[in-house]
Amino acid sequence: MELSCPLPETMPESIQLGHGSGGMMTHQLLEGVVFPAFGNSLLATRHDGAVMRVGNSRVAFTTDSYVVNPRFFPGGNIGSLAVFGTVNDLAMCGARPSHLSVGLIAEEGLAIAELTRVVRSMQEAAEAASVTIVTGDTKVVDRGHGDGLYINTSGVGICEHSLHIAPSSVRSGDVVLLSGDIGRHGIAVLARREGLEFEGAIESDCTSLHRSTLSLVDSGVDVHCLRDLTRGGLATALKDIADGSGLGVDVVEHQIPLSQEVHGACELLGLDPLYVACEGRYIAIVPAEQADKALEILRACPESQGAVQVGVIGESTGVRLESVLGTKRVVDRLPGEQLPRIC
Amino acid sequence: MELSCPLPETMPESIQLGHGSGGMMTHQLLEGVVFPAFGNSLLATRHDGAVMRVGNSRVAFTTDSYVVNPRFFPGGNIGSLAVFGTVNDLAMCGARPSHLSVGLIAEEGLAIAELTRVVRSMQEAAEAASVTIVTGDTKVVDRGHGDGLYINTSGVGICEHSLHIAPSSVRSGDVVLLSGDIGRHGIAVLARREGLEFEGAIESDCTSLHRSTLSLVDSGVDVHCLRDLTRGGLATALKDIADGSGLGVDVVEHQIPLSQEVHGACELLGLDPLYVACEGRYIAIVPAEQADKALEILRACPESQGAVQVGVIGESTGVRLESVLGTKRVVDRLPGEQLPRIC
Repeated sequence: MELSCPLPETMPESIQLGHGSGGMMTHQLLEGVVFPAFGNSLLATRHDGAVMRVGNSRVAFTTDSYVVNPRFFPGGNIGSLAVFGTVNDLAMCGARPSHLSVGLIAEEGLAIAELTRVVRSMQEAAEAASVTIVTGDTKVVDRGHGDGLYINTSGVGICEHSLHIAPSSVRSGDVVLLSGDIGRHGIAVLARREGLEFEGAIESDCTSLHRSTLSLVDSGVDVHCLRDLTRGGLATALKDIADGSGLGVDVVEHQIPLSQEVHGACELLGLDPLYVACEGRYIAIVPAEQADKALEILRACPESQGAVQVGVIGESTGVRLESVLGTKRVVDRLPGEQLPRIC
Repeated sequence: MELSCPLPETMPESIQLGHGSGGMMTHQLLEGVVFPAFGNSLLATRHDGAVMRVGNSRVAFTTDSYVVNPRFFPGGNIGSLAVFGTVNDLAMCGARPSHLSVGLIAEEGLAIAELTRVVRSMQEAAEAASVTIVTGDTKVVDRGHGDGLYINTSGVGICEHSLHIAPSSVRSGDVVLLSGDIGRHGIAVLARREGLEFEGAIESDCTSLHRSTLSLVDSGVDVHCLRDLTRGGLATALKDIADGSGLGVDVVEHQIPLSQEVHGACELLGLDPLYVACEGRYIAIVPAEQADKALEILRACPESQGAVQVGVIGESTGVRLESVLGTKRVVDRLPGEQLPRIC
């Protein structure tokens, strides 16, 4: 079980696992290879999805591929994850998710019974999230050239508001709200993959978040930015927002909710929970004067009932974490890969 | 080099290569597993993409994953194919393609130089097709669990007309127009993969088709159905339309354009060109009285300058091919897989 790989100092000649981490190497790959090729203003927002004008409407559009290993884990599977993950990316644009596409890449030899379980989970998740799967594609690759099943979901949704929800809208003095305890998805997947058993079962937090985000938007909260905590966890999300806004974030460590079980598992495995992925948690950045109202709204939604304020936005760039003892440390993207293939 | 696999009589217990053929096994998998799970009216149209209402607009939405092997072939590569393929699926909805998403699944060890070539090709193709790549995702899978690079592209576009372009709109008496010679993409990929050399280089026909389809629509032709000839080739496209319309198609074999080179390669390899994939050809089904006008419009576009009428729609279900000698044979979906991983 290898939990990290070192960061090459320059762009390596070939793809390494860390390029999929969501951390520093992913950042290098995107900045060095992908964005220069595709460079345009919508991609340049560095957000989970694009918001574009279609006729009279503002439409959000996003895509994600899912390669999680194992495909079934406590609290979900690759199918439900693929639906909720893309629904959540639309939610982070402040959109109401409406339609999904599904692209299946199946490896020769995958059990039809397993595929059936997965697509049924997708449909259940779609119903739970009030989205419709309207178009799809199925490809088969020969044995030994895939890994059972990969799923891409893309999604569209409507933005029914005029907010510009993006890192560039974040202002100094804003507060950072976190929707609940962190790290359960990553630990649940890792535990299943490595055959680890922890006291108190740890289930993935995988769920759809759009009802919670829409509650905020519909209540008139002036939401500046939303970000779900997937690959790279809370730390990476905060760093992305700091970089995207040109500002900084000061976070108070003991205000970050962490279950006893995830805390114990991270201690045992030498993992930093700040970097462990969630699939049902997000941060909302809102003006300080609306913090109480926003927290009240979040706590009224089951999926964000544990919402708390964890930090504030300031002029000084970067992300800083203040410990219980009052010491501060700088939080950066993870150099390599902490937990490969958790989504 | 295995060019076909037998059709299991009942649903097998595991995924086989033929499930990705676009032929009979794909049909069985979709009808037996995927559609029952996701069943809804938009999927039920069995079209290349879905057309849904977004605000005041009719928006087309489609997805495709690309697993072509090899990734570079005469006339294109996996990147240009992924862009043109999804642009074409939007075109077949009668839409004006506007925005694409890109999901990359890279295998550990893929050369960064190759990835760079591919994403640059994608951008060139996007510019050629006047679409913008606005959102994306990159995942990495560990060595031995992928095949270098898989790409998913999803796309949205606007339908600026009120036509209902779908198999269900096809009417008895309509004519079937084919935009040019068939089979070049499949043969080009196969030849590169197997190291075959044919007299006269065969290049993939991979290109974007939306200017041709929009010319038809914008000229007021009452287009009933459009379908690009990808997996499963012309035969499968005709069979899909026959099934979807509840009608039949009578095709005249000697009217189907086929280059000398593709004809020769198919003879040598024992392939039926009717089933060989194209990535830059399509059929348009229009009312007989508009056939001449439609052909004139198609021939004015470089990508469909070889357009001809190849058949007519009739009440008698199924697809029939009339040979030069006047004999007729029934054309069905291919039982197994003729050419795996050509897109």
